[in-house]
Amino acid sequence: MATVIRSMHDLAGLTPKQIRHGIREGRWRRPTSGLAPGYTQANLAVVPRGVAYDFLLFCQRNPQPCPLLEVLDPGDPEPREFAPGADIRTDLPRYRVYRHGALVDEVDDLMACWRDDLVGFLLGCSFTFEHPLMDAGIGIRHIELGVNVPMFITNRPCKTAGVFHGPMVVSMRPLAADDVIRAVQITSRFPAVHGAPVHVGNPAALGIHDLQQPDFGDAVPVAPGEVPVFWACGVTPQAVIMQAKPALALTHAPGHMFITDRRNSTLAVL
Amino acid sequence: MATVIRSMHDLAGLTPKQIRHGIREGRWRRPTSGLAPGYTQANLAVVPRGVAYDFLLFCQRNPQPCPLLEVLDPGDPEPREFAPGADIRTDLPRYRVYRHGALVDEVDDLMACWRDDLVGFLLGCSFTFEHPLMDAGIGIRHIELGVNVPMFITNRPCKTAGVFHGPMVVSMRPLAADDVIRAVQITSRFPAVHGAPVHVGNPAALGIHDLQQPDFGDAVPVAPGEVPVFWACGVTPQAVIMQAKPALALTHAPGHMFITDRRNSTLAVL
Repeated sequence: MATVIRSMHDLAGLTPKQIRHGIREGRWRRPTSGLAPGYTQANLAVVPRGVAYDFLLFCQRNPQPCPLLEVLDPGDPEPREFAPGADIRTDLPRYRVYRHGALVDEVDDLMACWRDDLVGFLLGCSFTFEHPLMDAGIGIRHIELGVNVPMFITNRPCKTAGVFHGPMVVSMRPLAADDVIRAVQITSRFPAVHGAPVHVGNPAALGIHDLQQPDFGDAVPVAPGEVPVFWACGVTPQAVIMQAKPALALTHAPGHMFITDRRNSTLAVL
Repeated sequence: MATVIRSMHDLAGLTPKQIRHGIREGRWRRPTSGLAPGYTQANLAVVPRGVAYDFLLFCQRNPQPCPLLEVLDPGDPEPREFAPGADIRTDLPRYRVYRHGALVDEVDDLMACWRDDLVGFLLGCSFTFEHPLMDAGIGIRHIELGVNVPMFITNRPCKTAGVFHGPMVVSMRPLAADDVIRAVQITSRFPAVHGAPVHVGNPAALGIHDLQQPDFGDAVPVAPGEVPVFWACGVTPQAVIMQAKPALALTHAPGHMFITDRRNSTLAVL
C-alpha cells in the first residue's frame, strides 16, 4: 500500500498532476489550501442532467457568487480544459453526498455513486485572488490567524433560475483603509474567481448586524481604521443546491478542493 | 397610423425605451447602428428549450465569440435584466426565421412564430467596444468608410457543446501599430462584448490567406504600417446554430439589433 502523505512539506515542488495522482491513490485526505501554489483550485458541484440547465443558468445569472470555470459533459468525469486526464470522481481528497438536500455521506471518492447523467461544474474559488492580494503586500486576516474565512448570509437575493434561488453568501476580509482601492483593482482582474468585491464598508447594507457572528467559518477581528470588504462567496451555489433539494448532489468537502493545471495568472482579464 | 421614422435625426435624444417603443409600433425598420449612443446593443438568438442547454453550454465554453448578456426564461419575451418591460418579439426592427438550418423568412416581429418553449439569448456585440476605442482616438476603418466590418472564418474550432460545434468567426480591424497596445487594453475591459482580441498581426495563423476576401461583410484596406487585429465575432454563434439545424431558430436580421437600457460603461470590468 502506498505511503500516506503526512504534511504539505512532502508535496513541496510537486505539480498539480502529481498531487492529484497522490490523492487518487489515497495518500492525501486533508484540505488542499497551500498545495500547488500559483495553480487554480476549484469548487466542485455535481448535479443530475435534469436540473443542470437550471444550475448552469443560475451560474450565468449570478457570476459573482458562481464563477464557472468549466462544465463537464454529462457522465464525463474529465475536466478537459482545466485538467486534461484528471478525474473529478477520484482526484479530490474528500467529497460530500447530498440526497434531496440532506447531507447523507462524506466519502473518499465518487466511484460508487457516479452515474451517466451526472454533470460536473467547476467553480472559481477565492484562493485564487488571495495570492495576488498577498503578493501586493495586503494581509489576509484569516490566513494570518490560520482560521477559516468568515462568511455571512446577506439580504441580497441571487437572481432565480428555475428551481434554484436563495440569498447571496459573502466572505469578509478586513483591510487597512489604504489597501481597499488596490484590493478592488486586483480582484477586478479575476472575474473567473468572484471578481471585485460586492460591497465595501457597511455590513448593515448587506443585512449583516454582527461581524463577530459569521454564519459559516470563523470570526476574525476588525481593527480600528480597518474596513470590512465583502466578496461573493462560493458557498452560495452550494447553499442554493441544498435548498433546491435535487435527488442527488455531490460536492467537494469544505476546503478539499480540486487542483487544476491552470496557473492563477491565466485567469486575469487584464 | 403612426408616422414612419425616416432618419436617425428623428431619433436623436430618444431613450432606448422610446426607440424600442417606436420600433414596436412599426416606425423604424432599419439597422440600429448609431441609435442610442452609449447604450449596449445586443445580438438575439432564440432556440427551443430542447437544445437550449447545449447552446448555453456552448456560450459558456466559448465566451469570446459568444459573450452572454442575458438568457431569458423559456417562453418569456422580456429581458428583465437588460431592458425591463421590453419584448424581444416586437422590439427589434427586423428578424430572421430559420427552420432546420435554412433561412425561410424575414419578418417584422416574432408574434406569429412565438412558442412557450422558446428561449431567448442576448449576446454582446462589438458596437459596445468600438465606442471606447473611438473615444480613445483610435480610428475604426469600416466605420470611417461606412461599410460592414470584414469577417473571416478561421481555422480555430470552437469548443463543442452537445449538438453545437464549428469554427470561430473573427472580425478584423486594421490599426496603426502604435494603437494596438491601447486597443488590447481597452477591449480587455469588456469581456461581455468579445473582450480582448484573439489575435494580432498574422492572418495566416488563423488560416486567413487574403484579407481582401472576407467571408462576410466588406473588405477594407490595410495600409502600410498598420496591423490587422482580430476579435471573436458574434456571427460565430449564428453560424453554429445554422449548422446544428434545430427545428426552429430565430435571430435579429444583420445589423438590426436589440437596444438595451444598459450603458456600455456598466459592462467594463475595470
